[in-house]
Amino acid sequence: MTETPLFRRVALIGIGLIGSSLARAIRRGGLAGHIAGHARSERTREAAVALGLVDSIHADPVAAVAGADLIVLCAPVGAYADLGAAIGPHLEAGAILSDVGSVKQAVIRDLGPHVPDGVHFVPGHPVAGTEHSGPEAGFAELFDGRWCILTPPPGTDAGVVERLAEFWRRCGSHVEVMEPAHHDAVLAITSHLPHLIAYTIVGTATDLEDATEKEVIKFSAGGFRDFTRIAASDPVMWRDVFLNNREAVLEMLGRFTEDLTALQRAIRWGEGDKLEELFVRTRAVRRGIIEAKQA
Amino acid sequence: MTETPLFRRVALIGIGLIGSSLARAIRRGGLAGHIAGHARSERTREAAVALGLVDSIHADPVAAVAGADLIVLCAPVGAYADLGAAIGPHLEAGAILSDVGSVKQAVIRDLGPHVPDGVHFVPGHPVAGTEHSGPEAGFAELFDGRWCILTPPPGTDAGVVERLAEFWRRCGSHVEVMEPAHHDAVLAITSHLPHLIAYTIVGTATDLEDATEKEVIKFSAGGFRDFTRIAASDPVMWRDVFLNNREAVLEMLGRFTEDLTALQRAIRWGEGDKLEELFVRTRAVRRGIIEAKQA
Repeated sequence: MTETPLFRRVALIGIGLIGSSLARAIRRGGLAGHIAGHARSERTREAAVALGLVDSIHADPVAAVAGADLIVLCAPVGAYADLGAAIGPHLEAGAILSDVGSVKQAVIRDLGPHVPDGVHFVPGHPVAGTEHSGPEAGFAELFDGRWCILTPPPGTDAGVVERLAEFWRRCGSHVEVMEPAHHDAVLAITSHLPHLIAYTIVGTATDLEDATEKEVIKFSAGGFRDFTRIAASDPVMWRDVFLNNREAVLEMLGRFTEDLTALQRAIRWGEGDKLEELFVRTRAVRRGIIEAKQA
Repeated sequence: MTETPLFRRVALIGIGLIGSSLARAIRRGGLAGHIAGHARSERTREAAVALGLVDSIHADPVAAVAGADLIVLCAPVGAYADLGAAIGPHLEAGAILSDVGSVKQAVIRDLGPHVPDGVHFVPGHPVAGTEHSGPEAGFAELFDGRWCILTPPPGTDAGVVERLAEFWRRCGSHVEVMEPAHHDAVLAITSHLPHLIAYTIVGTATDLEDATEKEVIKFSAGGFRDFTRIAASDPVMWRDVFLNNREAVLEMLGRFTEDLTALQRAIRWGEGDKLEELFVRTRAVRRGIIEAKQA
């Protein structure tokens, strides 16, 4: 790349699956003059250096953000309040503070108060991931063709939002701007509830007395294995998602439980037409996802 | 193949995803001298011939089973009673009657009474599939490395069971012999409940007012899309599974709902340690599936 990078120095606070994928996508696109990384654990810092993900590595997040014009929090959202308190006073005027968290109202609640005047706060969420964790699990193509949602607070400079949107587009993403509350509702159904259900059924299966865990594993190809993949996602990240999108998750869970109870009743009473009607309808949704190239 | 085929004439009653995959696996292994096919719909019969899946095609199942030494029912299990009544009187002494249905107690209930003396009845279930349906969707490798469960009634000739087991092994499968009731319990948790839940959540998502179906599709990469794949499976086949494994499905559903309610409570009360404890535990199950080569 001979053109000027979009950002002088990008600070990645957290270098797990998402942070390390972002580092790789930034390298691929030549989007930053310098990538500074912070990770709490020494093992992760060593891996980030060994993998060539960063130009500088910092045990102290304050050192990572020094001189950065883009700061992206890539840590579990439960850590944001403390991180914000630590780095807030050291952010430079004109810098953009963003993140990759799966919830957005709680991020604004926890991080917003620590954003100094003159710093642009534009929360983000790349809707992409795998069940693997850690800096070794990342790859540059993770965001290609996926959506990244930005939830700028009212009054955010439109040029700043566009600059961050361009950054994500060059990371391979499509970009959508959304209200934080709407983001949290949409993701509660498309991501948070599926994970909660997957975690639950894998737990239920392994608690059985009459089918051994070995049998459950052996005969998992009938559908269960797809749930185990989702239920292998990072435990701390997902704990924080559920704790920080409580209202929307409980609302969607309530709807799901109602629908499941109705199906339970249809099975008990042998109402095959009700079952078939639903199963035909859900099949069409899959076709929509394939057509939208999100399969 | 220069060795003698395992069976002289195999009759496949139903040529959808499983039946057509079986036809291809039989061809690949040279396991039958002749493959006779039956399908109710003319479109399927024409496709089976055009794809070269069968040596003879029959609109009447009676014609398909004439002279067959292996008959495999590959139709939705709700059709078994009628099929059994039709073909039963025409099965030849010494032939093996089997099937590929996802439930086994109901199959024995529906088909057993129609099996004449001298015919060996060995129900089977290859634990494999995709979300696609129809003769075009099949492929010879579908059963490779997957498990096929046989549930012979008490007193079945051990040599006959072994002959059918060898057939499935040559189709690429591992084979396990199991009690029908145990099969139905294990599959209720590893296959039937996952499908029921996937169908439910896709239905719940598309009923929302505040997130449009378009948005649900667009942001499905966060977990939802994996459920839509499962929820695209054949509607009639799955309707019949739920109606014919009612007790086991309702039992597993009850356990699942209890566990989900406990998680709901943990989210409501902010009990992050309970969530994390489960999420760490479920991660280990995924590792087991990868090690068992069923991922």
